[in-house]
Amino acid sequence: MSSGKILVAQGGGPTAVINQSLVGVVLEARRHQGVQRVYGAAHGVRGIVNEDFLDLTQETSHNLELVAGTPAAALGSTRDKPDLAYCQEMFKVLRAHQIEHFFNIGGNDSSDTIRIVAEEAAKAGYPLRCIHIPKTIDNDLVLNDHTPGFPSAARFVAQAFAGANLDNAALPGVYVGVVMGRHAGFLTAASALGKKFPDDGPHLIYVPERTFEIPKFLADVKAVHDRYGRCVVAVSEGIHDASGQPILAQLAKDLERDAHGNVQLSGSGALADLLCEEIKRNLGIKRVRGDTFGYLQRSFVGCVSDVDQREAREVGEKAVQFAMWGDRNGSVAIKRTGFYSADYELLPLEAVAGKTRTMEDEFIAPSGTDVTDAFRLYLRPLLGSGMPDAFRLRRAKVPKILKG
Amino acid sequence: MSSGKILVAQGGGPTAVINQSLVGVVLEARRHQGVQRVYGAAHGVRGIVNEDFLDLTQETSHNLELVAGTPAAALGSTRDKPDLAYCQEMFKVLRAHQIEHFFNIGGNDSSDTIRIVAEEAAKAGYPLRCIHIPKTIDNDLVLNDHTPGFPSAARFVAQAFAGANLDNAALPGVYVGVVMGRHAGFLTAASALGKKFPDDGPHLIYVPERTFEIPKFLADVKAVHDRYGRCVVAVSEGIHDASGQPILAQLAKDLERDAHGNVQLSGSGALADLLCEEIKRNLGIKRVRGDTFGYLQRSFVGCVSDVDQREAREVGEKAVQFAMWGDRNGSVAIKRTGFYSADYELLPLEAVAGKTRTMEDEFIAPSGTDVTDAFRLYLRPLLGSGMPDAFRLRRAKVPKILKG
Repeated sequence: MSSGKILVAQGGGPTAVINQSLVGVVLEARRHQGVQRVYGAAHGVRGIVNEDFLDLTQETSHNLELVAGTPAAALGSTRDKPDLAYCQEMFKVLRAHQIEHFFNIGGNDSSDTIRIVAEEAAKAGYPLRCIHIPKTIDNDLVLNDHTPGFPSAARFVAQAFAGANLDNAALPGVYVGVVMGRHAGFLTAASALGKKFPDDGPHLIYVPERTFEIPKFLADVKAVHDRYGRCVVAVSEGIHDASGQPILAQLAKDLERDAHGNVQLSGSGALADLLCEEIKRNLGIKRVRGDTFGYLQRSFVGCVSDVDQREAREVGEKAVQFAMWGDRNGSVAIKRTGFYSADYELLPLEAVAGKTRTMEDEFIAPSGTDVTDAFRLYLRPLLGSGMPDAFRLRRAKVPKILKG
Repeated sequence: MSSGKILVAQGGGPTAVINQSLVGVVLEARRHQGVQRVYGAAHGVRGIVNEDFLDLTQETSHNLELVAGTPAAALGSTRDKPDLAYCQEMFKVLRAHQIEHFFNIGGNDSSDTIRIVAEEAAKAGYPLRCIHIPKTIDNDLVLNDHTPGFPSAARFVAQAFAGANLDNAALPGVYVGVVMGRHAGFLTAASALGKKFPDDGPHLIYVPERTFEIPKFLADVKAVHDRYGRCVVAVSEGIHDASGQPILAQLAKDLERDAHGNVQLSGSGALADLLCEEIKRNLGIKRVRGDTFGYLQRSFVGCVSDVDQREAREVGEKAVQFAMWGDRNGSVAIKRTGFYSADYELLPLEAVAGKTRTMEDEFIAPSGTDVTDAFRLYLRPLLGSGMPDAFRLRRAKVPKILKG
């Protein structure tokens, strides 16, 4: 006899819309006759090995809707990356609770975890349906047009740079904004969507898909500053040199050599500060400011793409439909079907698990410091409706009298 | 014969609503019969000494409305702090262009500048009406209930901490967010408005109105972390020890001693990084993250208080009305007249110029690490309508089977 129990978990970095996917699973599951209980694992896979489950069937649909609109992971998340033994432990608990469907919302680590758990279940002859639901602000899942969470984070980055550009135009100088993304530059590239007028920043965009050379960077900044009297730069935290060494490590080493000592340089503000220091020291520009967007870009309450919200809800719903009406495990993926519309399909777990997508060449300008129109066309519809817009005065100069 | 010329300038750090005040001046001025031309100074007082004026009378009211809704300073701003000679130079230009009314939008430095220019005009027997229009995210103008720009920045800080708290609850650890404000803690204290449930962060709030002691700070963090398994901290960039020395300088010195070298520590991320380092080193907590809100808190496009927008527009309009119908110079001030309503009055320039307001004692809890209900009551209406709200699951635990 069927237990009618399903389990859902959230993993990795929280996003603005991951709770939409959670609520999509819960509400859709309860529409299916066979489902008796929907459990949630507290703090992801760790909640499974700890047998720490919440009964989401006892939630009101009203409160679930409110939670869906709240950022971060309502069940709690985890950074645990399960190995085989960990997955075997997870499976033991799933079997004890007679879980029949397991939904894991997360990035490529989460899809790999669910792949291993599915294999354990198959080996044991236990009928466990395993579905991975995509989520990551890095947009680095292969075979997905994009991933839920990315559009809202991209919107934050675009709005942040639109504002930083206005601020920099009012008080000219150099501004360096460091954006999340170790291997994929999508989120940093989103800064380009904050531009409107031809002289707007970000004037330079550095993604980890291209090698970062400090002398070239300084020459780029100087050229923009000479031209506009100011310069706004978007930098991915993952920038590295030709050997793959992170620029942060390289600059930190230089600083050590300067100081003849051992400087500890952990903490998230270091890369922005060090790049600013390089600019000040080498270009002699006085007003140089650096920001590290940090956790704000993934957690800020009140900056969300409605397209992202809708799709995050739908991947949760579709996951349940694939599980209930399909006969296979898999990873839900978003496909673009129009300008703009999307649909969903179920990919084999092995096709997505543990793989990393980076920015396609067609999205990066030949200069290596800008995006292409193809990227703008790709990203713009994902940012959703109601994007704020920036306006400026049309500058009618008054003739000088004293100094004309 | 009257020239009918007025001049408006913007000074200091840009805000989300400073352009509302600019547009308030321009549109209101054009309703007055005597006004022929409204000039704007490019980049504040520097644009005056450089005779760099824009004719705002040639702008459409449509575009002015769009500029009003755009953050940062549309005329450009400046960090120049004019001395007597600088003000005399400004006055020469104002006289050459037959400017009859001078409006300066800015903080207490801007009010001091306009005070000196007014004195020069009086000495020369030149009829110049001088009005200071308040603006600062620091909320540090005396005799004002609050200052335009502060409510929107406060809203950003509250929403940022609401999100950081959710993120920290999902992935527990210690989070330190550093907020602008060298002498006044209002903006840091605004983080308290991001709290909803009793165990929400920020759990600790440090403002420059109270002495900061590192051992006490570490004990505070440990106590919160022991109780909740996590801790969210809001810190003002201006925190200092009993002697008035900034904590940043103190921590940087410690680091130097560790490294036996000279470490350069300029750049905005340093305080957050160093506080995180102290926590890791002394409390042995692994997951410690720091963010410095930097320029985002004053420039982010898309986070604004509608109350702030309305009032910033009104202080601009009132400035023109005071100038045209009154017979004295002054500084426009916001008075609270209800819960919530506001009105405006014209204070003598000397009453505001160059003075700094800090947080009143009644706004700071006896613990020194929290705000009072009086502060919540003070700030909440200023944040405006449509504040996002956070919701959580009601946690119905599933009984354990294996480990019960």
